[in-house]
Amino acid sequence: LKSKLPRVGTTIFTVMSTLASEKSAVNLGQGFPDFDCDPALVNAVSDAMKNGFNQYPPMTGVPALRQAIAAKIEKLYGHSYDPATDITVTAGATQGLLTAIMCAVHPGDEVIVIEPAYDSYVPAIELAGGKPVLVQMTLGADGYAIPWDQIAAAVSPRTRMIMINSPHNPTGSVLNLADIEALKDIVRGTDILILSDEVYEHMVYDGLRHESICRHPELAERAFIVSSFGKTYHVTGWKIGYVAAPPALSAEFRKVHQYNIFTVNTPVQHGIATYMQNPAPYLELAAFYQRKRDLFRDGLKHTRFKLLPADGTYFLCVDYSAISAMSEADFAVWLTSEIGVAAIPVSAFYDSPRESGIVRFCFAKQDQTLQQALQRLAKI
Amino acid sequence: LKSKLPRVGTTIFTVMSTLASEKSAVNLGQGFPDFDCDPALVNAVSDAMKNGFNQYPPMTGVPALRQAIAAKIEKLYGHSYDPATDITVTAGATQGLLTAIMCAVHPGDEVIVIEPAYDSYVPAIELAGGKPVLVQMTLGADGYAIPWDQIAAAVSPRTRMIMINSPHNPTGSVLNLADIEALKDIVRGTDILILSDEVYEHMVYDGLRHESICRHPELAERAFIVSSFGKTYHVTGWKIGYVAAPPALSAEFRKVHQYNIFTVNTPVQHGIATYMQNPAPYLELAAFYQRKRDLFRDGLKHTRFKLLPADGTYFLCVDYSAISAMSEADFAVWLTSEIGVAAIPVSAFYDSPRESGIVRFCFAKQDQTLQQALQRLAKI
Ligand SMILES: CSCCC(=O)C(=O)O
Ligand SMILES: CSCCC(=O)C(=O)O
Repeated sequence: LKSKLPRVGTTIFTVMSTLASEKSAVNLGQGFPDFDCDPALVNAVSDAMKNGFNQYPPMTGVPALRQAIAAKIEKLYGHSYDPATDITVTAGATQGLLTAIMCAVHPGDEVIVIEPAYDSYVPAIELAGGKPVLVQMTLGADGYAIPWDQIAAAVSPRTRMIMINSPHNPTGSVLNLADIEALKDIVRGTDILILSDEVYEHMVYDGLRHESICRHPELAERAFIVSSFGKTYHVTGWKIGYVAAPPALSAEFRKVHQYNIFTVNTPVQHGIATYMQNPAPYLELAAFYQRKRDLFRDGLKHTRFKLLPADGTYFLCVDYSAISAMSEADFAVWLTSEIGVAAIPVSAFYDSPRESGIVRFCFAKQDQTLQQALQRLAKI
Repeated sequence: LKSKLPRVGTTIFTVMSTLASEKSAVNLGQGFPDFDCDPALVNAVSDAMKNGFNQYPPMTGVPALRQAIAAKIEKLYGHSYDPATDITVTAGATQGLLTAIMCAVHPGDEVIVIEPAYDSYVPAIELAGGKPVLVQMTLGADGYAIPWDQIAAAVSPRTRMIMINSPHNPTGSVLNLADIEALKDIVRGTDILILSDEVYEHMVYDGLRHESICRHPELAERAFIVSSFGKTYHVTGWKIGYVAAPPALSAEFRKVHQYNIFTVNTPVQHGIATYMQNPAPYLELAAFYQRKRDLFRDGLKHTRFKLLPADGTYFLCVDYSAISAMSEADFAVWLTSEIGVAAIPVSAFYDSPRESGIVRFCFAKQDQTLQQALQRLAKI
């Protein structure tokens, strides 16, 4: 069997989680909380099952959930999507990303991807027969930044889509208004689509504002926006998210979605629709995680790690070049095995080997877990 | 945006379910039960959530569930799959089908599809860049049969895969040993793969045996076998199934699965793993549905519908040509609107227009629902 994805192996997240559990390391690698979700959310899903919501929902998602999503977007970002035509519930963000790519990218089309990038982007483009065009973020004193001039230069007549991710995994950087203007300048007058991965939308710190692509009409009109309830509600294993896009894009998205998975777990959809009636959990998320970021960051100040900015997401990147000359992958393995703290090498987010001496920690952990990790890291 | 699937509209299942609810018709169209699942299954999932199984499971599925699936297959069909390498939990059968096609079918490859066929098969092949090669079942006095000589004739050097579905939706026919021998003859000495949709595996009647492709080593070695818990446990909205395939095929399947949805809802996986410890629910399913089939079939004997055999699945096809000369789609709409019973036109399962004067009823309904439908149908 000739492989469609010859270069794909086990994801770094699985590799590091497995190693962490073998070595009894504190797992700050794969991005998931080590604390549980709100029992009210569990009860809402249990109630939906007990009330008999166990058969096929509509293909596009339970209406109450699509309405709740549209209402949330309107409230937070001032853009109104029609839940009937513009919102589709997905089995997590990854499925939304692949489906958007699959519906829009034709064989030979180019898709601009900004690296470091989440590991599903490039294989998804390849499965659609598209060609990933990779542009690397620059790394300066202020952390990672997007070189918009290089992105402009990467645009060709074959460019079908630009993928954007803010807040950004793994760097923790967030798009600002200057980035948005640069993106507008690039797409103006073209038919380039935007695929915007906003799964960490509610985790933006220090009073910064999440520049959802949908805030900006010139971008929203050509964008698929992907989000995830797994990150927001501490249920990464529930596999539920959504894609918002204008009607013409959503129509194509839904054609593929229908024949990819048809629809998403009914009781989970009802449970989340009920739970979303209370906006507090997502409104309070930034403060919740900012405190954890600060706790973790403060603990690292006395180490030889150089801390990179973490304006958003639940990830903190650190430069370990004052500690070791090992490759990022080797350093992450050493950190897990010898120090007892698992991290993710940022090199895993690049298509071609690239070493910057940086690893990523996930701080979506109980305070005591972070403290235990800090104690171990202090020994380096 | 140039469509990837220009011919795809709303599925017939959604169209007919919507019409049924507008017209307050008894919905014997879309295949789902109108009764609820076992409360023990709901409790098992609720318990998993309450016990904190809410974060990412392994990409391939929760180990206990993969073990339970392998044990069930071994017990029923005598084939041993290794849960570590051969079983992958999917978000329902549709996602398993698309993922198998996506991982195996390269642009230009041909895939043989036997019509009538479930409506996701052809679009999934097209999304992979493959070419569906369609062969139609013959319809004789004994019902639908597969013309193996025509399938043999359809094989070319570009044939990459043959799709098989038994028990068969929509016809209710099941493969017998002669079919299996014919399939073996066709694939022997070739590298043609088999994609076997066995979602109705536990619904085979009158003492017939389900010829799972995995019972036959010469076929199992080249087969992806797809099944679904939604059909078996009366939870079509839970979106959980699995794909079983030998290690080399599973490895390719998993590469695509990982970047399609990564993994499947954790608490549902745990709940089903627990529930599978008791084999009674799937062992008793055939008797449960055979009684419903008989109830429905007996009630139709006094009508002018000609009943086709229904050896498996929860569908019964009827020939209405003694009643009307309408097209199948028109007849299904008329039946829904004027008689108050929704059905599915079998023409919807063909890529090119084809009229056989046959519609499909789903008998996965409460006895009183079936009786109400029978009363209405008796008036024709
Ligand atoms: C699907 S496992 C990866 C989780 C995650 O988003 C990350 O760690 O970056
Ligand atoms: C995904 S809706 C279709 C349900 C079904 O399998 C059928 O009715 O054939």
